[in-house]
Amino acid sequence: MAIAVDMLWTDARLVTLAAERPGVGVVDDGVVAAKDGRIVFAGARVDLPSGVSPVRVVGCDGRWITPGLIDCHTHLVHAGSRAAEFESRLAGATYAEIAHGGGGIAATVRATRAASVDDLVSASRPRLDRLIADGVTTVEIKSGYGLEIASERRMLTAARRLGAVCDVGVTTTFLGAHALPPEAEGDRDAHIDAVLAMLPVLAGEGLIDAVDAFCEGIAFSPEQVARVFATARALGLPVKLHADQLSNLGGAALAADFAALSADHLEWTDEAGVVAMAKAGTVAVLLPGAFHMLRETRVPPIERFRVHGVAMAVSTDCNPGTSPMTSLLLAMNFAAMRFGLTVEECLAGVTRHAARALGRDVEVGTLEAGKACDLAIWSIEAPAELVEGLGALPLHARIRNGRCT
Amino acid sequence: MAIAVDMLWTDARLVTLAAERPGVGVVDDGVVAAKDGRIVFAGARVDLPSGVSPVRVVGCDGRWITPGLIDCHTHLVHAGSRAAEFESRLAGATYAEIAHGGGGIAATVRATRAASVDDLVSASRPRLDRLIADGVTTVEIKSGYGLEIASERRMLTAARRLGAVCDVGVTTTFLGAHALPPEAEGDRDAHIDAVLAMLPVLAGEGLIDAVDAFCEGIAFSPEQVARVFATARALGLPVKLHADQLSNLGGAALAADFAALSADHLEWTDEAGVVAMAKAGTVAVLLPGAFHMLRETRVPPIERFRVHGVAMAVSTDCNPGTSPMTSLLLAMNFAAMRFGLTVEECLAGVTRHAARALGRDVEVGTLEAGKACDLAIWSIEAPAELVEGLGALPLHARIRNGRCT
Repeated sequence: MAIAVDMLWTDARLVTLAAERPGVGVVDDGVVAAKDGRIVFAGARVDLPSGVSPVRVVGCDGRWITPGLIDCHTHLVHAGSRAAEFESRLAGATYAEIAHGGGGIAATVRATRAASVDDLVSASRPRLDRLIADGVTTVEIKSGYGLEIASERRMLTAARRLGAVCDVGVTTTFLGAHALPPEAEGDRDAHIDAVLAMLPVLAGEGLIDAVDAFCEGIAFSPEQVARVFATARALGLPVKLHADQLSNLGGAALAADFAALSADHLEWTDEAGVVAMAKAGTVAVLLPGAFHMLRETRVPPIERFRVHGVAMAVSTDCNPGTSPMTSLLLAMNFAAMRFGLTVEECLAGVTRHAARALGRDVEVGTLEAGKACDLAIWSIEAPAELVEGLGALPLHARIRNGRCT
Repeated sequence: MAIAVDMLWTDARLVTLAAERPGVGVVDDGVVAAKDGRIVFAGARVDLPSGVSPVRVVGCDGRWITPGLIDCHTHLVHAGSRAAEFESRLAGATYAEIAHGGGGIAATVRATRAASVDDLVSASRPRLDRLIADGVTTVEIKSGYGLEIASERRMLTAARRLGAVCDVGVTTTFLGAHALPPEAEGDRDAHIDAVLAMLPVLAGEGLIDAVDAFCEGIAFSPEQVARVFATARALGLPVKLHADQLSNLGGAALAADFAALSADHLEWTDEAGVVAMAKAGTVAVLLPGAFHMLRETRVPPIERFRVHGVAMAVSTDCNPGTSPMTSLLLAMNFAAMRFGLTVEECLAGVTRHAARALGRDVEVGTLEAGKACDLAIWSIEAPAELVEGLGALPLHARIRNGRCT
């Protein structure tokens, strides 16, 4: 019996990341079949069911196919540049001096508040295009430079619009508890009150897929974060957390308490935090770009994550201050060279585990029947080249929902 | 009186790097005029001589123009991939284990010896294209994976040919004293004899612009390098040196003794070496990609270079083992974040000082009348963005010898 499919990619080597295959799930003489934008088969050519009758066949000349990459932690929607501040820091200015001069996150908040949705889309699109050039098919985008409802709404609206114009899957994260806006005049609890008021409104508008907060001495306390998380969970929204980046406030365990999809950064996470994450199934999102730009020396507890079976994702943290990174391949290299991840861990970190960090693992992240047919096709000789390169652009083609884009 | 010029770029902000201007030589409302492929004027619009009559005017919409970038230390011509070795190292294999398995530089030598000139051109072109996408208009390419005359000749010939097909200025460096080939059976002096025999032949064929060597415990001794350098200088060829990367063998001072254009790497260079370089006018070429990939912790003596007035250049060291880096912008970021260079030092390091490291400073490296009209035009708001970005592709246009390419 003929089985109709729309597309069949042949003569490919696959990195399936399928859980039932060992390692990254390599298939040497592989094919991928898609129908209605979904994978109906991904595996060895010899295992393709007989009778498959594709509308179109694309020979890949032995190229490698991975799942479309997933960047699961970005602040890519924003306005303004902080390059002058970067230059001052290199010339010896301290963070305090920069903050006194109106720099830092406050500068991005000012620029973002002044921007329309159109402004935000056009300012942010080159960053998203660059990620797409690395084979990214799903990207998370946070708010958090508006810090009042109208500006937060514009950021989230811009994120949704970018997904449509760039043909990339966008998940939005509301990060109202990112920093203290000037009008709060130092009253952090008052800003948390404001965040709690924004949450149901923006959620009701369909703008929020998850809720994030920044738990740190320079940001919000665990108690303040817990108030945000409780409200989010009551609204049925999953949570994530900027946790333990600069100090150990128990952020990882706090995230786990709320069954967070992910806890992110984690340089200072302790054994108890790792154990709690393992128990809750919370993904560890590693952000080596920020580690690099902040000249950090304390590495996240990678070996503990391995021992306790915490899934590790890798992301750019694309943001204008501490991680102006727009290459997910480069994030993998940094995760390998600075944090000691293996090639396999890096590849899972931008596919299967990144999907879990977004709660999208049923839909994307592996080459398996039933998932969206989001593929990256690479001009490489071995998957390790995706991690090894510093600046390379090895993408041959990007397929989203079964179509070349 | 009308002054005929071919091209006039207007409405631009210039980073001239001209020695008589402070800092990076910014001109806010700038223009560049070219005739017959050379800059005839680069400066403020108001200073443009009256009567200039261009054949074509290109408005730059306020974009920034820098000199075309110069990557002054690459091994980009080679065959084969060492990604499997990279993967093994991340998984815990030692260098000794990899060498025993036939890996390391020996693997690249095998693959390169087996490659034709055409093979080398097609294997290397994506790397050069990637550098060009960063605005590179001049690149140095070394031999050193052939290690016998026919293979070294093919490498240098491929380098020359790449310059023609990619419209980029290529300077070739003969690096016969890079490593010990298997047929030398451990006899380093015998290999130096072979190098001395190759030198006049390949120089006579016009394939050598400079001569380099690797001075290190795992490579060649200062005495062996001195033999190579003496022969090179007798042939009228300038020299460069891989110096003091993994240990202090006095490489910087040795290079200075031979009035080397540059000494490169320099993590272990001491005060005496820096003083000798300053006296000889030898440029310090910094290679933070190799530092990163080798997980080095000892930083070159940047402050000493500043104090003694040694010019610093920055380069990718593009090579298949220790620096698979194909972005000169990324090399600048690494030089800033890992070595502590300022934005100004980074920009001079890939333009004016890189030109000096190649003995090409009369021709390229600044926006000044008389030099080749090699320009990079950037979609950025401030020059610091070129250093800050991690993966960005901000190039708007590249001009070589006055033409858009």
